[in-house]
Amino acid sequence: MRTDRLETFADGVLAIAATLLILNVDTQVSGQGDLGHRLLEIWPSYAGYAVSFLTIGIIWVNHHGLMAQIDRADRVFLFLNVFLLMVVAFIPFPTRLVAEHIQDDGATAAAVSYGITLTATAVMFNLVWFYASGGGGRLLRPDHDPRAVKGITRSYRPAPWIYLAMTLVALIAPVAGVLLYGAFAVFWMIESSLFGRSRTEA
Amino acid sequence: MRTDRLETFADGVLAIAATLLILNVDTQVSGQGDLGHRLLEIWPSYAGYAVSFLTIGIIWVNHHGLMAQIDRADRVFLFLNVFLLMVVAFIPFPTRLVAEHIQDDGATAAAVSYGITLTATAVMFNLVWFYASGGGGRLLRPDHDPRAVKGITRSYRPAPWIYLAMTLVALIAPVAGVLLYGAFAVFWMIESSLFGRSRTEA
Amino acid sequence: MRTDRLETFADGVLAIAATLLILNVDTQVSGQGDLGHRLLEIWPSYAGYAVSFLTIGIIWVNHHGLMAQIDRADRVFLFLNVFLLMVVAFIPFPTRLVAEHIQDDGATAAAVSYGITLTATAVMFNLVWFYASGGGGRLLRPDHDPRAVKGITRSYRPAPWIYLAMTLVALIAPVAGVLLYGAFAVFWMIESSLFGRSRTEA
Amino acid sequence: MRTDRLETFADGVLAIAATLLILNVDTQVSGQGDLGHRLLEIWPSYAGYAVSFLTIGIIWVNHHGLMAQIDRADRVFLFLNVFLLMVVAFIPFPTRLVAEHIQDDGATAAAVSYGITLTATAVMFNLVWFYASGGGGRLLRPDHDPRAVKGITRSYRPAPWIYLAMTLVALIAPVAGVLLYGAFAVFWMIESSLFGRSRTEA
Repeated sequence: MRTDRLETFADGVLAIAATLLILNVDTQVSGQGDLGHRLLEIWPSYAGYAVSFLTIGIIWVNHHGLMAQIDRADRVFLFLNVFLLMVVAFIPFPTRLVAEHIQDDGATAAAVSYGITLTATAVMFNLVWFYASGGGGRLLRPDHDPRAVKGITRSYRPAPWIYLAMTLVALIAPVAGVLLYGAFAVFWMIESSLFGRSRTEA
Repeated sequence: MRTDRLETFADGVLAIAATLLILNVDTQVSGQGDLGHRLLEIWPSYAGYAVSFLTIGIIWVNHHGLMAQIDRADRVFLFLNVFLLMVVAFIPFPTRLVAEHIQDDGATAAAVSYGITLTATAVMFNLVWFYASGGGGRLLRPDHDPRAVKGITRSYRPAPWIYLAMTLVALIAPVAGVLLYGAFAVFWMIESSLFGRSRTEA
Repeated sequence: MRTDRLETFADGVLAIAATLLILNVDTQVSGQGDLGHRLLEIWPSYAGYAVSFLTIGIIWVNHHGLMAQIDRADRVFLFLNVFLLMVVAFIPFPTRLVAEHIQDDGATAAAVSYGITLTATAVMFNLVWFYASGGGGRLLRPDHDPRAVKGITRSYRPAPWIYLAMTLVALIAPVAGVLLYGAFAVFWMIESSLFGRSRTEA
Repeated sequence: MRTDRLETFADGVLAIAATLLILNVDTQVSGQGDLGHRLLEIWPSYAGYAVSFLTIGIIWVNHHGLMAQIDRADRVFLFLNVFLLMVVAFIPFPTRLVAEHIQDDGATAAAVSYGITLTATAVMFNLVWFYASGGGGRLLRPDHDPRAVKGITRSYRPAPWIYLAMTLVALIAPVAGVLLYGAFAVFWMIESSLFGRSRTEA
């Protein structure tokens, strides 16, 4: 299979998952009372929207960097991608839970759900990548950049553990966990903007 | 018509149908009580999300394999594809019914609706394919792979009957029917990953 | 502007508008009582889903046929397309009205809304086309097919009047109007499948 | 990174944000009373739908004009685009607020929210553009059109101030502010259709 149709499908799922996030903000604003006041009260919705949108944006950028080293897709690779997209498209759900419950007694359940979803995303990213790059570079382009391949491997491997650690933090202190998810997204963006070019072309 | 715009449209509909599935999970979690408890209680939503997402992923992979043998599209072919996408885009509805009702007395109606939708999808896939490949290979690429064409025909033909049989099981034992839908999706993925490469390139 | 990005955007809007239609079916099934019974009762939702999905499918096929004769896009053409997509993306709303109200005293308002939306779509299609093909073939490809151009003009021109007439029927007899909308979509598909190839390549 | 995948993702987000707007109209029509009467009463929903759809359409046309001068994307550029899309995908939310509250005492909060979102969009557009075109034309195509580049710079720079001024108007007179948002969109379309060709190709 040409990889371009995989990219179209992945871009579609990622774009929709990101854009659906706004529906979560919609549901929070319902209710009685002064609108201006309510719009300020639902600030966790905006924070959740921003963190999840940026996280999906980062996933999109990463997926792109990964596909740039890949030549072709076999069925296993396609299905691993379907699983990856399945966990990414799940993100709007825990995002809504966090936005709705971070200030009530559902905070722990919400923050942990969010962390589990991000951990699963990181695990799937590793599986997609190790299938493609393993077995002697099974699906890599003949002219792939060995430094970029190593750089991707090095940056993906710790991600599931980092997310798992943040999930454990969320289990004890949900607000701290959620702040860590957001901080990690911002950190990743800054770090990869500064040093990304030395590892991969994009 | 160039087939690439058909692929863009089909990928769009499939990506959206898959991503909308998360809205069904959203609606299940509403209500009172401890959030952590409710998140465990709605496990049929997660199962429904996963089975339908994978099923749409399989449809996407299959549609790709089909289009790889096709050279051009005439209007009949386009409309058959519109009908195919119409039944696929319907999948989120019975998915929600199953998630909501598999544990109450609407289980039979929900599981049968799901089965009818999947049966209709399998029928439409056959119509799309037999229109394209019939009539002496009406729309096939001049350099199509005869082994791949035969392989597709062989793998499509029994699908409506298999889904019909599972729908009949669901009529008697809805939970068993739903388990069969999921098991068939998983089986299909494994089987086509192992043997798919010998039939078609992707 | 290259026309391909216009096509991507248009395909996206059309795919989403079609796929969102299923949300209308979702809202109808809520309520009390035996699920199997309710699923039969909401048949107008399925009919509305099918007619609107096919209508959007026809719009997509037509837009394709139109773009095949066009070489480039200027800003007026882009904005006319944005207006066209704006009315098409409106279709899910009157579809829901018809599904919800065709059996109560809101039937006339619902059926007329649907007709006005389709009439506006047909008007916008004519504006898009006459802007592109008028003025001595302003945006047509140098190698456009004059027969195809005439065929498109001939098939577009009566459409607003036909939809207006059907809307007037709906004003008096809403159910008859809705049946006409559906019948016209089916007629158009059959007619263009049989005779379309003599007019345009796709 | 090739810029085409950025365009696919951006087109996807823009198409979805525009198409989701119809869901806001849906929620307004719920309730009791004669349907025809209610359909007339919710005219602010239609106006909001139209203004936001056209605004997103204008953003799409602008993004296209911008990308036409750009050769390649680095990570900073990608993330700036993710931030741009994040604010654009937010538009359906204040649109709904305006449609729902323009006639009640939430009008000011709604109209100001809308203005802040559009101001943020205009700011992000400038950041995206100044990053790409600054630093000696960091990401511009080697064969970029200097007149087009200057034209884009000249047309973007005042936009945040114009939106900020309109937001301040909305703070005092919300209805006047909303009328200005709509008038500015229409003005921009007419002006850029008439004079756009002298500045940029599309």
